[in-house]
Amino acid sequence: MGEELRIIPVRGIGEITPGSDLGVIISTALQTQGLTLANGDILVVTQKIVSKAEGRLVSLEEVTPSAFALTIARESGKDPRHVEVILRETRRLVRMDRGVLICETHHGFICANAGVDESNLAEQHQVSLLPRDPDRSARALRERLLSLAVSGASRDEKPPRQEPLEQLAVIISDTWGRPWRNGQVNMAIGVAGLAPIRDYRGQPDAYGRELRVSAIAVADELAAAAELVMEKSAGVPVALIRGYAYSPAVGGVEPLLRDAASDLFR
Amino acid sequence: MGEELRIIPVRGIGEITPGSDLGVIISTALQTQGLTLANGDILVVTQKIVSKAEGRLVSLEEVTPSAFALTIARESGKDPRHVEVILRETRRLVRMDRGVLICETHHGFICANAGVDESNLAEQHQVSLLPRDPDRSARALRERLLSLAVSGASRDEKPPRQEPLEQLAVIISDTWGRPWRNGQVNMAIGVAGLAPIRDYRGQPDAYGRELRVSAIAVADELAAAAELVMEKSAGVPVALIRGYAYSPAVGGVEPLLRDAASDLFR
Repeated sequence: MGEELRIIPVRGIGEITPGSDLGVIISTALQTQGLTLANGDILVVTQKIVSKAEGRLVSLEEVTPSAFALTIARESGKDPRHVEVILRETRRLVRMDRGVLICETHHGFICANAGVDESNLAEQHQVSLLPRDPDRSARALRERLLSLAVSGASRDEKPPRQEPLEQLAVIISDTWGRPWRNGQVNMAIGVAGLAPIRDYRGQPDAYGRELRVSAIAVADELAAAAELVMEKSAGVPVALIRGYAYSPAVGGVEPLLRDAASDLFR
Repeated sequence: MGEELRIIPVRGIGEITPGSDLGVIISTALQTQGLTLANGDILVVTQKIVSKAEGRLVSLEEVTPSAFALTIARESGKDPRHVEVILRETRRLVRMDRGVLICETHHGFICANAGVDESNLAEQHQVSLLPRDPDRSARALRERLLSLAVSGASRDEKPPRQEPLEQLAVIISDTWGRPWRNGQVNMAIGVAGLAPIRDYRGQPDAYGRELRVSAIAVADELAAAAELVMEKSAGVPVALIRGYAYSPAVGGVEPLLRDAASDLFR
């Protein structure tokens, strides 16, 4: 056995507001559950609480829609101010039909409404944007958690850890639809501490022939796995994944983004 | 905690050949690992071993490519016999470019090469096809495992189970690429015993407003999670997922397949 993977919901995160220190909040929640971060752990954190902590919130009352936003709003049946915010987050409209806007964001993500979302927000007429740089958010959270692991250990005057915490990965996730398939799945939008793709190219299969499946988007699979313990309405925005073997790496979501030239669907 | 999810690699499956009894093989492998199936368990099984057991293998030496297959083979640089097999499995070619064939299969799946694959096969010049009806394969495997759980308990003359095994789900998975994103992920192609989509429509978010994320493709997320313990070259074609709360259901993959009329990308 030994190699089983555990996915643990992190409860008690509570309300996040602009300026909230997610590192402290997550550390405290883990501690309350009797959990201490260990080398090799992976934390998957939903975009929504990162965006809230970073103040990536827009009040629609302060938005004046452009003429283009008004046109799209008429065609799509959306609030023109909401459309205006979506367009500001959009580098290119990939598809627009039947009230659905598929956008390429300034980050290079392709998703509905450029990730602009009105669910799970305390204020009425407010929408959330994706973090400006989700990789940077993931790196910052990872570093905060590492530093808290050191200071927490000394503050409590416990014996020092056997192994200092060094290998930790943070994935920021969002829940997106897909072409061809119904239902949404969690995807990685920011990655720190782990390579988002595991590359099998050139490795032989069980019979010594080259593998067809050559590169697995493990960061997306980890995000999808974490979603299974995050109930949408139950306030579980963080999951701890333990037991997945990976090599430490800087991370970054860029290897997951297919370049336009090799993409048959945009 | 209680609600954590465990993903356990099932080892020792060994070579599968046409006619292999996957139910017996998986039961034995679980037993060797000291595992007994329990109510609520989910088994994720890779398509490749199901296809092998069902004899869904084609020797390229017995294939005569059509004129159309020859044309595509010239354009794509593939073996014309391999292209011929792909076309036989294809209802509609969705895209063809730079050696990549994106096909809609007779099942309604959209994937590269209609799921025809040459990796992890014992014979040279052989390819595997997707199971003819992966839902039926999943149902048959589920029923075989349920009946073995009953007979196994009596054969060993152990005390009868506290609870007879009733709630078991089987997902058959394949590993596919996606538009817009690099890297492949595991997807569900056959489902028995669980609804493939968890529907949140109409449910309120944490603030009483309707959730944007309304339907989660949990069967795909479960398949993706299972992939994390299946090393491509290491012979782990089955994973046991334990601790995921779901209601028993007939299953079937059809709710995951977006109908062409509402699909912006085909």
